[in-house]
Amino acid sequence: MTEPAPPLEFWFEFASTYSYPAAMRVERAARERGRSVVWRAFLLGPIFGAQGWNDSPFNIYPAKGAYMWRDLERICAADGLAMNRPSRFPRNGLLAARVACANAAEPWLPAFVRAVYDANFARDREISEPAVVAECLERAGQGAAPLLEAAQSDAAKAALRAQTERATKLGIFGAPTFVTPDGELFWGNDRLEDALAWPLRAPSRGRRAGGSV
Amino acid sequence: MTEPAPPLEFWFEFASTYSYPAAMRVERAARERGRSVVWRAFLLGPIFGAQGWNDSPFNIYPAKGAYMWRDLERICAADGLAMNRPSRFPRNGLLAARVACANAAEPWLPAFVRAVYDANFARDREISEPAVVAECLERAGQGAAPLLEAAQSDAAKAALRAQTERATKLGIFGAPTFVTPDGELFWGNDRLEDALAWPLRAPSRGRRAGGSV
Repeated sequence: MTEPAPPLEFWFEFASTYSYPAAMRVERAARERGRSVVWRAFLLGPIFGAQGWNDSPFNIYPAKGAYMWRDLERICAADGLAMNRPSRFPRNGLLAARVACANAAEPWLPAFVRAVYDANFARDREISEPAVVAECLERAGQGAAPLLEAAQSDAAKAALRAQTERATKLGIFGAPTFVTPDGELFWGNDRLEDALAWPLRAPSRGRRAGGSV
Repeated sequence: MTEPAPPLEFWFEFASTYSYPAAMRVERAARERGRSVVWRAFLLGPIFGAQGWNDSPFNIYPAKGAYMWRDLERICAADGLAMNRPSRFPRNGLLAARVACANAAEPWLPAFVRAVYDANFARDREISEPAVVAECLERAGQGAAPLLEAAQSDAAKAALRAQTERATKLGIFGAPTFVTPDGELFWGNDRLEDALAWPLRAPSRGRRAGGSV
């Protein structure tokens, strides 16, 4: 019996524009290659803050921002995704990220994540509001109240903080970022195929040091 | 007789790491789609300077820089290109850019551009030195002395300044950038295929205003 291929880690932030098309296609693209996805919500705010940014680089650097919105429009059109430039950008995805981090292994999690991106980038909803996050949970078939309450617990807050710290330690500086089983980073929606094509190697356990098998 | 498909503009900067694999493959990729390439050398220094950077963002933001070098290594390995991290980064490509801008339509220009990238990113040569630029001209089959002299003329200096100003007006903020005949920008080596796939439309001359033909 062969072991299943190890999953691809998908690191995403709910305010990140290019994470939107990535979240919508990552599961399908992985499945086509016999792979599964581990969903890793994190926050870019602390990472950006550590390098001196207190806003999205797409707001700080207007030429880059103008390009990104046009590019996102093209990508969403090609992927058949609705896209309406949010009236507020970036939106605060803290609560949604706490929910996502606390429920990362739940089977309904991908549907919730997609609902949040759809709310932010297609329906111009204020995803920082608990009522909107609740709607997204309901769209994923879940009762919202207990999940929102759990997401505000100290444990859930600490889990998201720890996950963001792990992102920093992995060298993640933007979203989406794909991390392969052997720790290679691929940054950007347009690099998903490269991440999935990255050669899976035998686990280092059991290999002889320096040996060729 | 059908007119040839309009060319793709390739905007590059000699210090730009991702411009290296792009320069090495842009002509081949375009040719496979029946397209030609217009080579547009420009300088990122003034564009970065205008947004408050006096160094490469890959030096200013270390996590992004570490990722980029690893990513460039992977891309070059996949493309069969030599890559040796330059002992100095970024290097000043001013003279080489003046030569490239003044000779943009010469048939040897692509070979010269590729020789400069090879010098910088494969052979760790100091491309700011006239002797190294001269070698690159010789590798492209040209006598170097008159071309270097012409590149230092007021006209050649003004031409590169004007080209960099045009880049800014087009909304270019990084390199490589591909510009389609109808003015769409695609930023990054990994977007070359998207730029070539961008639908060519009929020229607006001859179309009725607002009409559907």
